[in-house]
Amino acid sequence: MSDEIYASAPGSEFAGLRCLVLGGSGFLGKNLCRSLALHGANVTSFGRRPEDPAPHFGIRSMTGSFHDQATLSGAVKGQDVVFHLISGSIPESSNQDPSAELRGAPLATIHFLDLCRSNNVKKIVFASSGGAIYGIPDLIPITEGAPTNPISAYGIGKLIIEKHLSLYNHLYGLNYHVLRISNPYGRYQVGRNRQGIIGAFLNRALDGLPLEIWGAGDIVRDFIHVDDVSRAFIASISYDGPHRVMNIGSGRGLSVNDIIDALERELGGGRLARAFLSARPADVPINILDTKLAREELGWAPSIDLVSGLRDTIAWLRDARRVRNSD
Amino acid sequence: MSDEIYASAPGSEFAGLRCLVLGGSGFLGKNLCRSLALHGANVTSFGRRPEDPAPHFGIRSMTGSFHDQATLSGAVKGQDVVFHLISGSIPESSNQDPSAELRGAPLATIHFLDLCRSNNVKKIVFASSGGAIYGIPDLIPITEGAPTNPISAYGIGKLIIEKHLSLYNHLYGLNYHVLRISNPYGRYQVGRNRQGIIGAFLNRALDGLPLEIWGAGDIVRDFIHVDDVSRAFIASISYDGPHRVMNIGSGRGLSVNDIIDALERELGGGRLARAFLSARPADVPINILDTKLAREELGWAPSIDLVSGLRDTIAWLRDARRVRNSD
Repeated sequence: MSDEIYASAPGSEFAGLRCLVLGGSGFLGKNLCRSLALHGANVTSFGRRPEDPAPHFGIRSMTGSFHDQATLSGAVKGQDVVFHLISGSIPESSNQDPSAELRGAPLATIHFLDLCRSNNVKKIVFASSGGAIYGIPDLIPITEGAPTNPISAYGIGKLIIEKHLSLYNHLYGLNYHVLRISNPYGRYQVGRNRQGIIGAFLNRALDGLPLEIWGAGDIVRDFIHVDDVSRAFIASISYDGPHRVMNIGSGRGLSVNDIIDALERELGGGRLARAFLSARPADVPINILDTKLAREELGWAPSIDLVSGLRDTIAWLRDARRVRNSD
Repeated sequence: MSDEIYASAPGSEFAGLRCLVLGGSGFLGKNLCRSLALHGANVTSFGRRPEDPAPHFGIRSMTGSFHDQATLSGAVKGQDVVFHLISGSIPESSNQDPSAELRGAPLATIHFLDLCRSNNVKKIVFASSGGAIYGIPDLIPITEGAPTNPISAYGIGKLIIEKHLSLYNHLYGLNYHVLRISNPYGRYQVGRNRQGIIGAFLNRALDGLPLEIWGAGDIVRDFIHVDDVSRAFIASISYDGPHRVMNIGSGRGLSVNDIIDALERELGGGRLARAFLSARPADVPINILDTKLAREELGWAPSIDLVSGLRDTIAWLRDARRVRNSD
């Protein structure tokens, strides 16, 4: 899980495979690009922000908007596999303007699917949300066949994209795979826009600011280390079984308060200050994913426990902040 | 099922209830407006086309676009119950341009829901599609809990609207009810745009044109007379149980060829000419709805069998064509 390991073990499993990562400058995207490069793929990262730090491992970087069809068309051309990791928003803010959500990623995705058709893309892997797509669950853990009643426009947006992938598969044979990812954490999660509770907490803790908790801290989430997510993406490339939609999570539930306890232990600086805010309507009370399908079909399983994952994340974040502060 | 019955039996069950029917100039809408007026409601019909013939029974008619927020706002103001019967397209043509479908009824519906919130509308009843929303079924008959994997952008559009109704209920307590209607037929179905197979077949048969059959005529549909659909809408007004989504259909499957046989018997003019065309990708092979939930919760059941329903439809259509030809 360090730069050295990535750099010293280039693989050849996917040598020559041309992979495009949409959202490549985001948290999941940066991690996935590096992982793909490690497996020998020919990687292009497409994102809104220029790479910071500069891309490594021969990753080609393109800066542009997912809504700019001309630029996107140039990016898709010649690609074998495209990873769609674009989100226009986050759950809470999406509810302020659901029509903007609809006109955002879902609409642009339809144009993107047309580009994939005309460019004969071999596979699309979509990062859906295991946290937002189900809404308030009837049963825990949540299987892929559970009802999908999102309580955020963000979650509805993910569902709309999934349904269009299914439609384009039916109409045109476009090949796709959906990973419904729980709550990922790890390196490159910067806690921007309050998204990603572990990244946001860590940054505030290191800044000496109180942790912002919506509600009493008793909501339960399924946290998964981003390296486990990247391995699921990698496994998805060669999967050709019958299942199009798979949960990717730890299968284990931890409350926000559990996370704070763990952070206090790992940071070693005593009790962290808390700021309790009103509960948010887009927060489901509990979310834990059933990952049996991915285990059986992909031969994938989560491998990084919370303590190891937090230690790695804290080490990375302290390094990154040191570099930033010394600039 | 005749004008006389409607006109001679004005009820008072919903006296003073202000009802708006969006899509009131369409097939389902015209029937619903008359039925609501029969039950004593204060009815406003909102549609793209001016009423033809002129509205009866004191129905107020407004002509406008569902996308014109100013006009729609005026229509929604002061209403108790709003029936949303707007479809921007039909299944087959929607697949030619799925992004247009998304920018159509689903996007306009979000703005409409905001209007309902600000105007304190008591209930929204949405006409969803039991034929398109499920896609290719795993099990027959199809229950409301079955997977929803539409094979048309039209069906995805219906699903998106349902999900936003659920979201607005969660966020703002907006009250709603969804009826997933199978294949309705009956008076005022004009077979425009090839929509509504029975209406389209009848018009072509009376014009002496061959019936257009996509595929071999073996696809199975659940046909329901529009008066039974109107009764379900009426029952929905006072329903306040826990179920938000209900199938409305006959629960019986008939093939396209079965329908042609029945039409030949009822029209009495011998064998009808057929034109066989290529099967359409948006046509599911079979669709039969399980209507147990509506029976139990609404106390509703379909009451008009196919032969009676076809006779009524044929009688109305012959009358309507006579009037048109004598104009």
